[in-house]
Amino acid sequence: MALPSPSYTITMRVQVPASQAATSELVAAAAEQGASVTGVDIAQSSTDHLTVDLTCDTIDGPHSQRVVDALDALDDVRVLKVSDSTFLMHLGGKIEVGLKVPLRTRRDLSRAYTPGVARVCLAIAERPEDARRLTIKRNTVAVVTDGTAVLGLGDIGPAAALPVMEGKAALFKKFAGVDAWPVCLDTTDTEEIISIVKALAPVYGGVNLEDISAPRCFEIERRLRAELDIPVFHDDQHGTAIVVLAALINALKVVEKRIEDVRIAVAGVGAAGSAVIRLLHAQGARNIVGFDRDGAIHAGSDTPGEHHQWIAEHTNPDGFTGTLQEGLEGADVFIGVSAGDILTGDDIARMGDRSIVFALANPLPEVDPIAAAAHAAVVATGRSDYPNQINNVLAFPGLFRGLLDAGARDVTQETMRRAAVAIAGVVGDDELNPSFVIPGVFDSRVAEAVADAVREEAEEARAAGRSPARADQLAEDARVTWPGRQPGVEQPHVP
Amino acid sequence: MALPSPSYTITMRVQVPASQAATSELVAAAAEQGASVTGVDIAQSSTDHLTVDLTCDTIDGPHSQRVVDALDALDDVRVLKVSDSTFLMHLGGKIEVGLKVPLRTRRDLSRAYTPGVARVCLAIAERPEDARRLTIKRNTVAVVTDGTAVLGLGDIGPAAALPVMEGKAALFKKFAGVDAWPVCLDTTDTEEIISIVKALAPVYGGVNLEDISAPRCFEIERRLRAELDIPVFHDDQHGTAIVVLAALINALKVVEKRIEDVRIAVAGVGAAGSAVIRLLHAQGARNIVGFDRDGAIHAGSDTPGEHHQWIAEHTNPDGFTGTLQEGLEGADVFIGVSAGDILTGDDIARMGDRSIVFALANPLPEVDPIAAAAHAAVVATGRSDYPNQINNVLAFPGLFRGLLDAGARDVTQETMRRAAVAIAGVVGDDELNPSFVIPGVFDSRVAEAVADAVREEAEEARAAGRSPARADQLAEDARVTWPGRQPGVEQPHVP
Repeated sequence: MALPSPSYTITMRVQVPASQAATSELVAAAAEQGASVTGVDIAQSSTDHLTVDLTCDTIDGPHSQRVVDALDALDDVRVLKVSDSTFLMHLGGKIEVGLKVPLRTRRDLSRAYTPGVARVCLAIAERPEDARRLTIKRNTVAVVTDGTAVLGLGDIGPAAALPVMEGKAALFKKFAGVDAWPVCLDTTDTEEIISIVKALAPVYGGVNLEDISAPRCFEIERRLRAELDIPVFHDDQHGTAIVVLAALINALKVVEKRIEDVRIAVAGVGAAGSAVIRLLHAQGARNIVGFDRDGAIHAGSDTPGEHHQWIAEHTNPDGFTGTLQEGLEGADVFIGVSAGDILTGDDIARMGDRSIVFALANPLPEVDPIAAAAHAAVVATGRSDYPNQINNVLAFPGLFRGLLDAGARDVTQETMRRAAVAIAGVVGDDELNPSFVIPGVFDSRVAEAVADAVREEAEEARAAGRSPARADQLAEDARVTWPGRQPGVEQPHVP
Repeated sequence: MALPSPSYTITMRVQVPASQAATSELVAAAAEQGASVTGVDIAQSSTDHLTVDLTCDTIDGPHSQRVVDALDALDDVRVLKVSDSTFLMHLGGKIEVGLKVPLRTRRDLSRAYTPGVARVCLAIAERPEDARRLTIKRNTVAVVTDGTAVLGLGDIGPAAALPVMEGKAALFKKFAGVDAWPVCLDTTDTEEIISIVKALAPVYGGVNLEDISAPRCFEIERRLRAELDIPVFHDDQHGTAIVVLAALINALKVVEKRIEDVRIAVAGVGAAGSAVIRLLHAQGARNIVGFDRDGAIHAGSDTPGEHHQWIAEHTNPDGFTGTLQEGLEGADVFIGVSAGDILTGDDIARMGDRSIVFALANPLPEVDPIAAAAHAAVVATGRSDYPNQINNVLAFPGLFRGLLDAGARDVTQETMRRAAVAIAGVVGDDELNPSFVIPGVFDSRVAEAVADAVREEAEEARAAGRSPARADQLAEDARVTWPGRQPGVEQPHVP
């Protein structure tokens, strides 16, 4: 399945003789090695030589090197320099701090900084709830990691995790206008992480936990939710769960089954798997069976940890005790959040009629999606090179946009369930088909739909007394709105 | 000394009859109350009424209210709404997170985020020193406070301190292109602050401590400098010291005296005073006498704390033991970093010939600058409404620009001394006079001069083996440069 991809784009600066044929030979040599050539630019020309920048997608590092070697081996050709687009994009980082106010004159400085700022400080000291109105708190999210479970790479530490957190912050801004900032912590101590995030909270309107290994991530989230007055959300758990539920809602429409009726096998009951099971349960699914390496989780399982406990108590109503392969027999839905290549097409063939397969392990899915598609009615993966990509970016930007706009304190199961329903709802009946059960990541309708749903839920919860009344009286027209829209201006009164 | 100022600008929306005279009467009524009217805009007009936005500078909150009342008292006039420019400027905060890379296509996403970002993470995991090249660390500074000593307001807490830290971050960006982020900590425990800042360090290339009360600020700075590999700088101490030394270098030129010869009285030996004394000492001043509330610090003083100890050992060579007033007798220089209104013109009159007075207490200087100017040759304050404003913004942006560009680990006395000399050097011999011993805050030459001096010092220290060799090999052309300039592009090789 290895194909050239834009994450391995290289540009080679090559010196060749000034002949008609030379450049074509370069392109042919690169193509022969399996590279996908996307550009040829002449950097410099003289009477006898050309300097050419040849850009191509490659498969991986060793493949890049083979392409370079192949060009270098041509007669009269010299590769002068090789650059790598992914690394070039990261030079100096991907986000920056920008000014929202002018600082051109003494008058500006007197308002934004001393002496004027002192009045704003005093106003907040007197009415702490004004912090949301008069500071960045209203629009900021801390993206917190300790670097222990980064992508599929594992425990690479906080410094090496920073490029991911910067990317996350960039997505927050791009898709929902949220100002997110990376907090990469040089500690893996659960209590220390909890106390640090609590200490940092004055600057933020929300906390997005990211790439923290289980089971510490459960305790950290639980405690922070209990001890902070801003929403705390572990994206690896709930972001995945929201998008899985969204895709499942639409996939079930395609196969014309009801969530209450289907039997669902979930492989992997770590951070993501536990959250997926709980959210499917909240949406009405009852016949769910979770599987870990030892087989099905059931009421009698020897399963330590509160999450496994919950799964044992609330799922697997028939008390199934076999392996994953056995459990797939006749199942309607398979959801994999585990490891690559653990199933074959034959396993999928044994599922029930018009089955649904979400094979989300990355980069290698639980089952080859091509093989799965030979038997299942709907197949989704976490990859961008197949239809139906289950990608968290569909959830977290809009979710926090809604939470911040509502001044919400909590992220509940109901908040997340509504977010999933909103994502599913973006796919119109006229768009729905087996290859399009979930919107694409660049679909601009998604974040706004999620934000609206989350804000409505928060406001209903408040109206029903299920969550604390908001004290900050954020005026409707002063909401920070979407990129490109002009926020309204509020008129504070003279104290 | 109270005059209308832009930190108390209000805009009143007023309904008046549609007559020629009505608007003029408004302006006259506001002016009569002492407001400085800066704008009259017609918001709406009908056949019988006008809605007018009248903008004026006022002195303070109560004065604003008097102006509003005076307009409201006019016949047929109704004040509909009052807004306050300083508060309006703070709505939603003053800084934001921006994207430095495009995220428009799937190709962009594959490079900036998954799957491409994984290669960048791995590169940093293998070579931690690459973090400076491939993440925001190369250009970021944490602005850290616990909100215990904010401006002249005291212990107002971390939430109320945020507007100041946002302002600081805005100045960092505006004056030197540094990406600074507010870290307002909800703890005042010295050990906890130290361990939190250490845990946060992976994201930052420097730490600017701000508005943390003494004596905790000394211990926090000392420990962080010892335990972190990025520069740590407490602006309230050293920022002030740098700008004071810069101004003194030029003031001494004006009065034609040498720093080695003058007698200097420093009132206040807290965070700022201690740092000022040490930096003047580093520049060659020997006859310095520090004063606290109990009088001169001398070798026999009962002065607890390592900073007082140092002052007792290194200053006051004549063993002077009297009060500040007595110590001013014949002194060449007075530097006040203490409290407002503790001296009179008569005290200044008793100083030596062609004396220098820096009265830096804010908002009320140690001595009325008008009264001081009757006797002293050069007078400076911390205020923007007199000549010679001693403002930290002249130091910290360029200082961190230089430290980040050099990949420096330390901020030494010599770093700070060179920064001061660089600021002083911006004032050309043809510009120097008693009212212009220090450049204005908007002088664009300052930050670049400071950055150059700091970078040179760091490079010399490294060449001389006084500081560790830099491991990150930041290419000359890949430096993050000044706002508006295009950074060079580096070409990383394929791994």
